[in-house]
Amino acid sequence: MDEQRTEIASLGEFGLIDHLTKNNETMQAGTLLSVGDDAAVIDQFGKQCVVSTDMLIEGIHFDLMYTPLKHLGYKAVAVNLSDICAMNATPTQILMSIGISNRFSLEAIDEFYEGVYAACRRYNVDLVGGDTSSSQKGFIVSITAIGEVSPNEYVTRSGAKKNDLICVSGDLGGAYVGLQLLEREKRIFLENPGVQPELNDKAYIVGRILKPEPRADIVNWLQEKGIKPTSMIDISDGLSSELLHICKQSGVGCVLYEDKIPMHTETREMAFEFQIDPTLCALSGGEDYELLFTIPQEEYEKIVLNEQVSVIGYITDASEGSHLLTRQGNKHPLKAQGWNAFEG
Amino acid sequence: MDEQRTEIASLGEFGLIDHLTKNNETMQAGTLLSVGDDAAVIDQFGKQCVVSTDMLIEGIHFDLMYTPLKHLGYKAVAVNLSDICAMNATPTQILMSIGISNRFSLEAIDEFYEGVYAACRRYNVDLVGGDTSSSQKGFIVSITAIGEVSPNEYVTRSGAKKNDLICVSGDLGGAYVGLQLLEREKRIFLENPGVQPELNDKAYIVGRILKPEPRADIVNWLQEKGIKPTSMIDISDGLSSELLHICKQSGVGCVLYEDKIPMHTETREMAFEFQIDPTLCALSGGEDYELLFTIPQEEYEKIVLNEQVSVIGYITDASEGSHLLTRQGNKHPLKAQGWNAFEG
Repeated sequence: MDEQRTEIASLGEFGLIDHLTKNNETMQAGTLLSVGDDAAVIDQFGKQCVVSTDMLIEGIHFDLMYTPLKHLGYKAVAVNLSDICAMNATPTQILMSIGISNRFSLEAIDEFYEGVYAACRRYNVDLVGGDTSSSQKGFIVSITAIGEVSPNEYVTRSGAKKNDLICVSGDLGGAYVGLQLLEREKRIFLENPGVQPELNDKAYIVGRILKPEPRADIVNWLQEKGIKPTSMIDISDGLSSELLHICKQSGVGCVLYEDKIPMHTETREMAFEFQIDPTLCALSGGEDYELLFTIPQEEYEKIVLNEQVSVIGYITDASEGSHLLTRQGNKHPLKAQGWNAFEG
Repeated sequence: MDEQRTEIASLGEFGLIDHLTKNNETMQAGTLLSVGDDAAVIDQFGKQCVVSTDMLIEGIHFDLMYTPLKHLGYKAVAVNLSDICAMNATPTQILMSIGISNRFSLEAIDEFYEGVYAACRRYNVDLVGGDTSSSQKGFIVSITAIGEVSPNEYVTRSGAKKNDLICVSGDLGGAYVGLQLLEREKRIFLENPGVQPELNDKAYIVGRILKPEPRADIVNWLQEKGIKPTSMIDISDGLSSELLHICKQSGVGCVLYEDKIPMHTETREMAFEFQIDPTLCALSGGEDYELLFTIPQEEYEKIVLNEQVSVIGYITDASEGSHLLTRQGNKHPLKAQGWNAFEG
């Protein structure tokens, strides 16, 4: 099978997905939107159903040394619900498959499920199916989330128009510095097992990486206010990468204002302590699971009323490219430097 | 986290699922059927949507030494579609997540996808989403299948009634002896790498394990003939185990006739060569992905017209237990001895 051998790493994650799905044709009339967005959209006889799936693998996506299993269960559900929210839909059900090595006791699995059920209750979502299996190594979780949306109210990545405002919910970069902190404390602990980590005054950023929340509240608010974004995506890989997805799929460019990027004080302080540029944490850190979306300019009056939403830039013609306007007034091309799942 | 440690293996797969889902309450009015059947059923504004998910892990569910990646892709889709068929529904879409270690080249992944797309085309199903990720070890596939069914035409495991006829599609035991054959040839090859396996005259049973087909044809035929089974399940763990699922969930007993169990000549011959009881292969072998279902007696005249369906027994009161009536006229209690995913 290896007459010619192309390393997966040479394509990168998105290159791989493009390659694997380039010949994917849909046959079902009910398939309204297929591969290439946060979720697929299926017409179910008038109303529309949104589905998305994600896999989390121990050692790749999480480290059980500093991730309590209950948090892992919660997060595994949360990140899937986030994909449904990113379609402007309301999550309704999930299915979950897990693979577990014999290293895990039933008590450990129970803890994991506690987190899963906590997230389901919190977001009014039913766990309706799944599969449990043994694994040769480590813990594997695969979740499919299902949601509903009124006909043609779903929002893709491809509808951003010139002059639209770029908005983001919550604040960014916290998950990244939270992770750096956990990794540092892990190293210290491994070198000096007697030392207990001091994380008490870092509750916000640690919470950002361990227990992200899907922004169902933002989707509800947008619906209440009658605002339909022209495009939307959730931030799993970092603001740059996600904004470039929107630009590419919408065939537009953008200007992003560095000084408008919302950031928590704790995030900023931690970034300085680590001597990392806080803006870089927001642009490339990822795992914040906030919503990035575009709206027509005429919705500005409405959007500013929500303190949980920041306007961070605007959409331009594709020919103008995608840029970051720095505090100093310099213009830098935006680059996708999200965590590459195929590195290392 | 390990103050008390209960080994997962001590519960068995079904015990684990029962344990983990015992407090699972549904909140969505649209959730018509949740955990505990071949698939869940979701009301989508009148019509009904069926969803199911399965995870396959290298070294646990398949051995790439004798499973061509193209076949693996085909089978991974097929077994998920089989769950949808087992609900009396028509598969329409799938989502697929894969985890791959750097041992795999792009060409290898392409082969796998060729199989996936071949199965999608064969069954008129769209691949609408997924996730690709690296894994620390081996190949991991998780598929969620979606199907549609007319309102309340879905069939669960819990509707079998006293005097119903027990029916099965195709023939049984082939996948099990096929696997034994592949395992034997693998051992021979490992001991004498020069020896090429001789599988040409064993195409049927090798095909049964490597390339199972979901019985969408049976579901279509039942619908055409206006036969709605009272209960249905697909045979992944073996006839005994599946029939006991139906009996337990329907609150009934059964009598199964050994001499009525359909078996291919090649299966029987191979079983004799391995000195295994062919009946045991059908009862406990599993992976045949045939449909096991019950119908009211008055449908007998219709069902006998289909050569692909065998009537193999009948449903009794629960108080009479579940039995196999042997060729010699002896009555043995049925036992679930399917492959336990948590053994070894």
